[in-house]
Amino acid sequence: MAYTLQELSDFEDIRTLKHKYFRSIDTANLEVLRTLFTDDVTVEFRGGDYKVKFQGLEQYVVFIANSFHADAVAMHQGHMPEITLHGDKAEATWYLEDIFINLADKTKTIGSALYYDKLVRTKDGWKISDTQYDRIIETVTPLAADERITVQYLKNRGLKKSELQDISHLIVWS
Amino acid sequence: MAYTLQELSDFEDIRTLKHKYFRSIDTANLEVLRTLFTDDVTVEFRGGDYKVKFQGLEQYVVFIANSFHADAVAMHQGHMPEITLHGDKAEATWYLEDIFINLADKTKTIGSALYYDKLVRTKDGWKISDTQYDRIIETVTPLAADERITVQYLKNRGLKKSELQDISHLIVWS
Amino acid sequence: MAYTLQELSDFEDIRTLKHKYFRSIDTANLEVLRTLFTDDVTVEFRGGDYKVKFQGLEQYVVFIANSFHADAVAMHQGHMPEITLHGDKAEATWYLEDIFINLADKTKTIGSALYYDKLVRTKDGWKISDTQYDRIIETVTPLAADERITVQYLKNRGLKKSELQDISHLIVWS
Repeated sequence: MAYTLQELSDFEDIRTLKHKYFRSIDTANLEVLRTLFTDDVTVEFRGGDYKVKFQGLEQYVVFIANSFHADAVAMHQGHMPEITLHGDKAEATWYLEDIFINLADKTKTIGSALYYDKLVRTKDGWKISDTQYDRIIETVTPLAADERITVQYLKNRGLKKSELQDISHLIVWS
Repeated sequence: MAYTLQELSDFEDIRTLKHKYFRSIDTANLEVLRTLFTDDVTVEFRGGDYKVKFQGLEQYVVFIANSFHADAVAMHQGHMPEITLHGDKAEATWYLEDIFINLADKTKTIGSALYYDKLVRTKDGWKISDTQYDRIIETVTPLAADERITVQYLKNRGLKKSELQDISHLIVWS
Repeated sequence: MAYTLQELSDFEDIRTLKHKYFRSIDTANLEVLRTLFTDDVTVEFRGGDYKVKFQGLEQYVVFIANSFHADAVAMHQGHMPEITLHGDKAEATWYLEDIFINLADKTKTIGSALYYDKLVRTKDGWKISDTQYDRIIETVTPLAADERITVQYLKNRGLKKSELQDISHLIVWS
């Protein structure tokens, strides 16, 4: 059975929306980030020793701006979508791979996660209204003394240490 | 020249099928795994010092259940499909990246491979009838003493050591 | 608003074209590589301490043949396209992850980059007419003494040291 043109177009647009998401966080592009979510988006990321939980686009922007800061060396790539359409709503599963080096505490985290998104069609196109992930693997290693960081895009683009806001209310550490 | 709605739908469904495959193996989700292949699927994976070769869905389930066990820290992500449709048959090339840490023997394998799949359209949708891969790169390193595994999904989901079956008949080591 | 069949087909073909690109470079498949670009393709890759800049398909083939040589252990995977169609032209952003081990100087580079492609529709299908990237992250580490390279496809496929041509005119080191 074939999908309709509208359904195939929805698959395309939902994919591209999430592609913009990963690009926007790794480059601290908050202008793009703002266009991807509903105002009341709900977020819950369940990591190894942390849980991120909050609601609202403004909180999301604060969370990303303060996580992808000038000491972060970040790669977050989302793969292999499984998208289910329900008219003006949709669900999507994505499989993340991420590398995150924090130059402030000299740690390197490599991991994967399954994202579970809910989306709604708005007059401005598809938006993510709920996003969650569960870690599948995560390893943390002290940054090796002989590992040279030769490019770090966020160095000049991310918030400096003196500019960081407290986001501890968005994260529960265990 | 444009594809038909049916062809575009086939591309979508064949992609999603393989996306489910990689998600199912890394989470030892054998229920999902069972839905992806024909009963008589043929398999040949040509790795660095091993060749996996067998036939049949039941063998596939046994192979995955005993490979993605409670000591495995696994990420397998398939990318960049090149799909060719021939009516009710199809071929697909995929480019794998994988990380596999075996906590039993404390090794870490990182690699890539090219998958070559053959698919058939059945009354239950597309199924993989033949799947093969050739390794492109593979490196093996002793697991570093300072690498902390902070999340390992398979720890509670995979087979325990005492539950493992012998699958040596499915693998030829060189 | 739905895309047309032609637009959806263009998305498919532009994706598959780039998928072939990454497969072709990691396997030094120059026959496939030649089919992907216009004859006058322009190239600029802005890396950590290098800038690659040249024009023309023949130069591209020389650059790849001499970069993906018999001492290279290479994985280049492009993800998460954002494609914009303008009739017979198109633009595409891709997010690269790459691993490159050079066995000659025993270094390991891991990185990401954003590709910016321009494409044109020709009588032989879509071709890339301009391709650029900016590195997002890049780390360089001496190859660890205990890291065993167990598969290296390019070993037998890539150019041997004695066969390498000088490509220093294509690269500016900083």
